[in-house]
Amino acid sequence: MSDTIQTLKGFRDFIGYDAQKRKWLIEEMEKVLLTFGFEPLETPALEYASLLTGKYGEEAEKLIYKFRDRGDREVALRYDQTVPTARVVAQYQHEIVFPYKRYQVQPVWRADKPQKGRYREFFQFDIDIIGSNSVIADAELLAVTYEIYRTLGFDSVKLHINDRALLMDTIRSSDIRENNILSTIQTIDKLDKKTEEEVINELIAKGLEKAQCLRIIEKLKNSALSSSLENIKKAALSFGIPENVLVFQPTLARGLDYYTGLIFEVIIPEYTVGSVAGGGRYDHLIKDLVGIDKPAVGIALGFDRTLEAAEELGKIPPLQKNKVLVSIFSPELMSHSLNIARILRKEGVSTECYSNEYDKLDKQLKYASKKKINHVIIIGPEEASSQSVVIKNMTTGSQEKVSQEALASYFSTQ
Amino acid sequence: MSDTIQTLKGFRDFIGYDAQKRKWLIEEMEKVLLTFGFEPLETPALEYASLLTGKYGEEAEKLIYKFRDRGDREVALRYDQTVPTARVVAQYQHEIVFPYKRYQVQPVWRADKPQKGRYREFFQFDIDIIGSNSVIADAELLAVTYEIYRTLGFDSVKLHINDRALLMDTIRSSDIRENNILSTIQTIDKLDKKTEEEVINELIAKGLEKAQCLRIIEKLKNSALSSSLENIKKAALSFGIPENVLVFQPTLARGLDYYTGLIFEVIIPEYTVGSVAGGGRYDHLIKDLVGIDKPAVGIALGFDRTLEAAEELGKIPPLQKNKVLVSIFSPELMSHSLNIARILRKEGVSTECYSNEYDKLDKQLKYASKKKINHVIIIGPEEASSQSVVIKNMTTGSQEKVSQEALASYFSTQ
Repeated sequence: MSDTIQTLKGFRDFIGYDAQKRKWLIEEMEKVLLTFGFEPLETPALEYASLLTGKYGEEAEKLIYKFRDRGDREVALRYDQTVPTARVVAQYQHEIVFPYKRYQVQPVWRADKPQKGRYREFFQFDIDIIGSNSVIADAELLAVTYEIYRTLGFDSVKLHINDRALLMDTIRSSDIRENNILSTIQTIDKLDKKTEEEVINELIAKGLEKAQCLRIIEKLKNSALSSSLENIKKAALSFGIPENVLVFQPTLARGLDYYTGLIFEVIIPEYTVGSVAGGGRYDHLIKDLVGIDKPAVGIALGFDRTLEAAEELGKIPPLQKNKVLVSIFSPELMSHSLNIARILRKEGVSTECYSNEYDKLDKQLKYASKKKINHVIIIGPEEASSQSVVIKNMTTGSQEKVSQEALASYFSTQ
Repeated sequence: MSDTIQTLKGFRDFIGYDAQKRKWLIEEMEKVLLTFGFEPLETPALEYASLLTGKYGEEAEKLIYKFRDRGDREVALRYDQTVPTARVVAQYQHEIVFPYKRYQVQPVWRADKPQKGRYREFFQFDIDIIGSNSVIADAELLAVTYEIYRTLGFDSVKLHINDRALLMDTIRSSDIRENNILSTIQTIDKLDKKTEEEVINELIAKGLEKAQCLRIIEKLKNSALSSSLENIKKAALSFGIPENVLVFQPTLARGLDYYTGLIFEVIIPEYTVGSVAGGGRYDHLIKDLVGIDKPAVGIALGFDRTLEAAEELGKIPPLQKNKVLVSIFSPELMSHSLNIARILRKEGVSTECYSNEYDKLDKQLKYASKKKINHVIIIGPEEASSQSVVIKNMTTGSQEKVSQEALASYFSTQ
């Protein structure tokens, strides 16, 4: 029996505070999204496998969890949220109001090699505007992203922006063969993680000449904002993004092939693991996926990274204030204790009742300290008859006698 | 391509308001649970198949989504939340603080025949207290359940309660063969949905005599509260459940075999489809599942049914107040409009910007009406130069000119 009493490798349980943190992050992000008029979308965990086939490239395709169901249909677990969203856009094209502003936060599954920070089940948090090719959409996406990170308390957040079209032009004008352009971009994308020398060596390995590489990097570094980027920036400022938050990064490339215009990444300078989110405009992808012509711009927020950054930089507030445990002094005084708990709860104080009237007080106090409950209320026979309670502060160890009447205000002023 | 552009049978997409409703319901329930000190738990979608094997009975086992992953492990999709929770209790038994009060709300997958109201992917919402055999735990579970439905606005909610041990005794004392007891209980459980005659016929088919059936039903109807149930009821009243909410239902049986004490169902009288939630005490199940001796009491809230009841009985509040669309009069006035939207958003008003500066005003108004946005702000050249806006009420069709300064207070007083 014992070999199955464990989680599959690459999968995680989230217990107590670990689950609460995740819920907190989702709620904070959702609050901002709703004020911008974005709507949630949920799609099924399982799709027809053929929907996913041929959509992610050869390497990625090996990572799809695929199987035959009991009706002998070939089905697959959600691998990302973009392909299912493209399906939704096609399937409900006559009901959805375009531009369709949706966000989606669900788990995806990838049979990847598990390693530090890489899991087989993880949440994606995607925000997209589908059906508008206006700079307003680009700017709005930047604005809602900025607002999310600002609301989370990351005051130093930066949005690195670039124009994929500008990047393509620069590379094309450097005599790179057409079928080498995307591969070159993928290498240039590493300029923020590797040294210039390493990047140049990788480009040389791909068949470029050294002088050519130097010329491209030099050109990129001296690029000016494209007019498209100028317009997006102007709109973004009107949306309220402070000017110093937007950083033009002409060597920013983004790995994915399908971007057509704006590309961007979200950087929290104090968090050094890497960018916490990234996205861009992809005007042809939905047509390629499902045959419906819809320009789009979107972002994938790195859920685990953003949570890690929030934790490391102390941005997660205490998730439960005023937590109180009402202990049970004896079976005879049980009802009395339950009543006190009810009164506190009614006043909005998060209140647990210890749930065994036969356990010793010591064990009950230990329960509180393990669960990081800061106050324990004790009601012995004396307190019960004098309509009062003893409040034990678990941090300081001090005890205080308080009348039942003063109890609610005691915690509301804490 | 087009045959895969659809959802698998028995699976659902939740778009916009449909997804928002679900999020609302979860949040409302969670708020109540946190005030009682319950913690969230999330487990992976995939488990070792052997964890699930032999746990649900022969018929149910056929419905498990099971397959071999790329590492040739036999894995299975979450079929319920009880077995994974039992695994968590065993796997983390030295870290978890008992009594462990957890709730879990995640999708489960069952390869069931899809039909009205039955899906292959659906949410379960489970609340359990694991590791206490005290009546406090039973009563607390009733109390948090009552509080959840009361908070949702179901003021008429009733909790039907019974004692599975009492039921077993009554049946045993009626000369039923031991191996026929659970089967008899399963039939008696149908007394709330079928006529007495139908139930008796079913029992006769199972080998009981008619006189025996009549005697059992008569006995059950005349049962008095068991002393265990008396104590639970007393504690439940101390928790603040009004006495008339608790209804002793001596014929209530609950289908599942593993209950050992309290059993109960949640009834919303105006919602006639059936009970919206049910649960009970199961003191041996966790030991049977994972070998750890932990008495427990729990409830499964019917997520889809509760949502349906909330919808039918008008308990879902407007999920977004003050929704406003700022239209874009012309490309030249775009920045001006974006600024207005930003000011409104800062004041807490949910504000969308129409995201195409080249679309005609008519199209923009149509967008608002399709998305049920009640107010559209229009800023033409005249308004822009006089620092004012026009507010069009989409319900009444009336228009009003308001100064930019008065704009925020206009919506806060709506």
